[in-house]
Amino acid sequence: EYFFDRHSEAFGFILLYVRGHGKLRFAPRMCELSFYNEMIYWGLEGAHLEYCCQRRLDDRMSDTYTFYSADEPGALGRDEARPGGAEAAPSRRWLERMRRTFEEPTSSLAAQILASVSVVFVIVSMVVLCASTLPDWRAAAADNRSLDDRSRYSAVPGREPSGIIEAICIGWFTAECIVRFIVSKNKCEFVKRPLNIIDLLAITPYYISVLMTVFTGENSQLQRAGVTLRVLRMMRIFWVIKLARHFIGLQTLGLTLKRCYREMVMLLVFICVAMAIFSALSQLLEHGLDLETSNKDFASIPAACWWVIISMTTVGYGDMYPITMPGRILGGVCVVSGIVLLALPITFIYHSFVQCY
Amino acid sequence: EYFFDRHSEAFGFILLYVRGHGKLRFAPRMCELSFYNEMIYWGLEGAHLEYCCQRRLDDRMSDTYTFYSADEPGALGRDEARPGGAEAAPSRRWLERMRRTFEEPTSSLAAQILASVSVVFVIVSMVVLCASTLPDWRAAAADNRSLDDRSRYSAVPGREPSGIIEAICIGWFTAECIVRFIVSKNKCEFVKRPLNIIDLLAITPYYISVLMTVFTGENSQLQRAGVTLRVLRMMRIFWVIKLARHFIGLQTLGLTLKRCYREMVMLLVFICVAMAIFSALSQLLEHGLDLETSNKDFASIPAACWWVIISMTTVGYGDMYPITMPGRILGGVCVVSGIVLLALPITFIYHSFVQCY
Amino acid sequence: EYFFDRHSEAFGFILLYVRGHGKLRFAPRMCELSFYNEMIYWGLEGAHLEYCCQRRLDDRMSDTYTFYSADEPGALGRDEARPGGAEAAPSRRWLERMRRTFEEPTSSLAAQILASVSVVFVIVSMVVLCASTLPDWRAAAADNRSLDDRSRYSAVPGREPSGIIEAICIGWFTAECIVRFIVSKNKCEFVKRPLNIIDLLAITPYYISVLMTVFTGENSQLQRAGVTLRVLRMMRIFWVIKLARHFIGLQTLGLTLKRCYREMVMLLVFICVAMAIFSALSQLLEHGLDLETSNKDFASIPAACWWVIISMTTVGYGDMYPITMPGRILGGVCVVSGIVLLALPITFIYHSFVQCY
Amino acid sequence: EYFFDRHSEAFGFILLYVRGHGKLRFAPRMCELSFYNEMIYWGLEGAHLEYCCQRRLDDRMSDTYTFYSADEPGALGRDEARPGGAEAAPSRRWLERMRRTFEEPTSSLAAQILASVSVVFVIVSMVVLCASTLPDWRAAAADNRSLDDRSRYSAVPGREPSGIIEAICIGWFTAECIVRFIVSKNKCEFVKRPLNIIDLLAITPYYISVLMTVFTGENSQLQRAGVTLRVLRMMRIFWVIKLARHFIGLQTLGLTLKRCYREMVMLLVFICVAMAIFSALSQLLEHGLDLETSNKDFASIPAACWWVIISMTTVGYGDMYPITMPGRILGGVCVVSGIVLLALPITFIYHSFVQCY
Repeated sequence: EYFFDRHSEAFGFILLYVRGHGKLRFAPRMCELSFYNEMIYWGLEGAHLEYCCQRRLDDRMSDTYTFYSADEPGALGRDEARPGGAEAAPSRRWLERMRRTFEEPTSSLAAQILASVSVVFVIVSMVVLCASTLPDWRAAAADNRSLDDRSRYSAVPGREPSGIIEAICIGWFTAECIVRFIVSKNKCEFVKRPLNIIDLLAITPYYISVLMTVFTGENSQLQRAGVTLRVLRMMRIFWVIKLARHFIGLQTLGLTLKRCYREMVMLLVFICVAMAIFSALSQLLEHGLDLETSNKDFASIPAACWWVIISMTTVGYGDMYPITMPGRILGGVCVVSGIVLLALPITFIYHSFVQCY
Repeated sequence: EYFFDRHSEAFGFILLYVRGHGKLRFAPRMCELSFYNEMIYWGLEGAHLEYCCQRRLDDRMSDTYTFYSADEPGALGRDEARPGGAEAAPSRRWLERMRRTFEEPTSSLAAQILASVSVVFVIVSMVVLCASTLPDWRAAAADNRSLDDRSRYSAVPGREPSGIIEAICIGWFTAECIVRFIVSKNKCEFVKRPLNIIDLLAITPYYISVLMTVFTGENSQLQRAGVTLRVLRMMRIFWVIKLARHFIGLQTLGLTLKRCYREMVMLLVFICVAMAIFSALSQLLEHGLDLETSNKDFASIPAACWWVIISMTTVGYGDMYPITMPGRILGGVCVVSGIVLLALPITFIYHSFVQCY
Repeated sequence: EYFFDRHSEAFGFILLYVRGHGKLRFAPRMCELSFYNEMIYWGLEGAHLEYCCQRRLDDRMSDTYTFYSADEPGALGRDEARPGGAEAAPSRRWLERMRRTFEEPTSSLAAQILASVSVVFVIVSMVVLCASTLPDWRAAAADNRSLDDRSRYSAVPGREPSGIIEAICIGWFTAECIVRFIVSKNKCEFVKRPLNIIDLLAITPYYISVLMTVFTGENSQLQRAGVTLRVLRMMRIFWVIKLARHFIGLQTLGLTLKRCYREMVMLLVFICVAMAIFSALSQLLEHGLDLETSNKDFASIPAACWWVIISMTTVGYGDMYPITMPGRILGGVCVVSGIVLLALPITFIYHSFVQCY
Repeated sequence: EYFFDRHSEAFGFILLYVRGHGKLRFAPRMCELSFYNEMIYWGLEGAHLEYCCQRRLDDRMSDTYTFYSADEPGALGRDEARPGGAEAAPSRRWLERMRRTFEEPTSSLAAQILASVSVVFVIVSMVVLCASTLPDWRAAAADNRSLDDRSRYSAVPGREPSGIIEAICIGWFTAECIVRFIVSKNKCEFVKRPLNIIDLLAITPYYISVLMTVFTGENSQLQRAGVTLRVLRMMRIFWVIKLARHFIGLQTLGLTLKRCYREMVMLLVFICVAMAIFSALSQLLEHGLDLETSNKDFASIPAACWWVIISMTTVGYGDMYPITMPGRILGGVCVVSGIVLLALPITFIYHSFVQCY
């Protein structure tokens, strides 16, 4: 109902397409069954669907059937009637229920609570990470630590409040990840899913940094180790991508970027070519033509590249700008070209996003 | 006629949709009756309308009927023929006429004048509020007040010209609000309407601030009270939302925002996720990698967040910008991502706005 | 041919519309006759056209007929056969030819040359106006004039090269305007045309400034007269609007702005409301909350208005920016709102422009 | 298949168009043969195609035939059966194979490798050109050269690493260009192709600069020669346009710009007219009205032009901005007008790009 209210014209086009070409796909975000009903109304059959969608419809239909039959005692009885099924069934069904609870946030109240807790943990960990870089907070933490040091020597990380919160968060994420792995149907497929890989990449750095701190000691003044620790610490920011599990917008965005890699490459090529040409010309006009009175900001092409990208995207920080007449004319051309060039591939990406959404 | 001139294709799609799905809605900003005539021409009946639209059509038809019959003496006669109707009818009709005058700006000349006066009052109060913050004006007001003080002691607020104008405006708004409440058909429904709630919220702070001034005295040097007064004073700015009653564009905007809350949330999530990632990375690249020669502007993640939002929206004030090579590359990526990310949900909002308008 | 290549779908929609509603208009920039042929092919008749378009088609058809018949000696003979027509016809036909030469740049080679000369004069006068403000040029002109003064006393304006060029340009424009008026068919209608009004407004200030210079003397050190002269001088910039006569893009733009006055008003109202709200809030957050450590840039609401418009349009000069945390959050909201708000009415304007073009 | 998946609606419109007007074109990026099959399915014939597309279809069909028959031993036998064909055929076929290898990157593995090498050379030469302007690099090169000078006198260019890499790149480009010319079917047509002209323009400056260095000596302190050399050196940046041979996006962009010259002119006219009006007004308001307290940034109209273009495109470097109240109001109008004005022709360009792509 909601779908038709918003996409009636889209359906018209789908039909036009079906008659011309023959294969139909499910509209995204629409119940497969109601779509199927709609198709029957329009005089189409399951055979008009793409193969992948046919399988999805079958899955859904059998799912619905299983769901209904699982609730019926007769169906249960049939399950138990199979030899050896009596022992296996409860644990399998418990696993299945766990899997649903973790993987499908809308399947039950418990799943919703679990999802909410997960989102809260991500947000809390983000806030703590942000706050821990504030000067006031760092000063307080340093005071706290020196107090700690004075009272008794301590090299254990995570004694400050922010460290404790981080430890709790990482504990939750690790537990969630492990439980998800255990209850997954197909371990091999589970490992390959992008969201799970991101989970792993987000969790690992914490343990590495803990290990490093333990081995080198917290008070190590080794600058190199300090940098590595800061880098590992910042990788916690990728926890935020875990939110994609709970927001359909972020998933759509990921899917769009995956489908639009051609347009992304095109955008990149456009930007690089424009940057090469405009940065070389601006460096020549602002710096090369007259070395005595030249604009020192445009001394090298890489520096001019920064000006080009900031101008083409119409950001214009004002840290660099042309001062000569030919440089300014080039600047105007560069900005207008940038607006035109960037608009072209972005609209393709937008159309792909609408299709995905 | 106007509608078809601009939306002929839209009507084509609506019809396509009707045949597919079965329920039709009124096109916004079109006379229901002419729409109905159009429907009959296309071979559709009132039953093809959504329930809410059917009711709206009935209302409109009976309205028209009432209107016509009210003007006919026969209808009046029938009205008076009912026992006790003779006394009730004039006051009820007077109330109804008042209600129309206040609620429907296009219903009569008096209503139009009333609406214009209301708009003028809003604009005057806005101008006075703006002007009262100008240094010249404040200096003049202070002179005026000190003169006042010298001649005779006065703690009554609103002795300055701006205060008098504000008092007149607030008086008008209060009177309008009260009359509207009195003549409204359904008091309960009246209170729930968003525009009326905004009216109340816009008027109340003035009275609170007057009360506060009376109790604490105008010359109170209490900084805390001063801040509260300034906050209450600034809340008068929400009077400007009263204009929404008279401009269909603002109403459409409000309706769009209400319908697009999903897209607004998506936009917010996109921005927050991008801000988290880019601010953490930029803080690391500009400040974290080399603490000695670091960019002090990017000392903390919240500070970097400000840079990220200002760059992603291509504003680029120039108060902060990356200076290292990796920071600048990240800056370019951040800006281009920002343009792409912001464009996606905004276009959804735009489409919703077009539909509403 | 060109039209169908680009607007085939549009024609499909027009037809859909015709069947539904009944009246058709000419597609812009398409030959009326070929459109008529197309209509006949689609089974439509002249009666399906809007009244204005029917008249246009008739005009065009009779025009074509006149054109053909005027070239035929028989038609000429018929013209001369009328009593008294022999004397009147040559001057009338000469006037008509002049009119075409001046009003329709594509009608003949002479008309094209005339149009080109007119464009060149506009561009030359613009370049001279721009150059006359350059410091080098002004210094040279001052030298020239003092030399002039020394050799012999001279208060006649226009002795400098730029003055002479301007005098030639204005002479041409005046002559063009007068000839156009003389050869026009309907004097009354001629005066009412917007482009002619602009011509008059662009030419008049020059003569006023010349008169003023003559009466007050060129060496008048009266500051007030100097300002008036500079203002009158700058009004020459509106000569550039004369280009609209020769570029269809500019005419389309004018037509779009005329048709989109509703959307322009909506855009204005949106911007004003947003400016009122955001400027008051930003002034409060940046300046009002803490008068000691406040941001002096946001001292008054009008100053904050400048920041709001510059931020909402994502220009971001960097002369003003919020420095407090709440002010920065408001800044982010303001920028994102601005992008959304401005995009909405602009897209309407764009659609109107596409229809006009 | 891919095409229909994405452009099903486009095909519907194409068909509508075909029935109305009669001529069909190939959809870009779609196999001609499958398009032809599709057409037959829809009841259309080759005669419904535009002339150019018919020829393309014939070419493709005969190509396919040649390709198949060339691989068949029978076809080869027939080729050799022709008198004198036995000697001519191998060299002709070898030329044809070379031509394919150089002109069609997807035709064979060798062609792909060749294309990749060419892209790598372009990128390497760009990186070297950029790096050679870096201060560190130039310092190192100067050290290297002075070392060189000390050990033995040397005026031969290209002794530094960057010079050697450039020489290799230019050698490759020259060789590629010559081979391409030799194996081309039609020498005259080859010279006229835009990409080949660009190749020539990109290569020539290098040889001119080498010649100039040889004649004037490397240590020439003649400033004029130095500037010319730097200009010639920078022209190497146009090597980057050679990438267009290998990226369909860049070719599409070129085609779009060629087709959109009307819109480009319109964009230029809009910008120029707006710049003229706003720069003159801003110069008047900021500088002309009050010469004592005026904003020196707006002293001349050309300077104000730079502000106008930077504001209209919403870049806003912040090097110039209005400070008076009327100047700021004009600034707001200028920015909003700029957003509207620039959006109009750019969207036309975008639509043309979508059609090309």
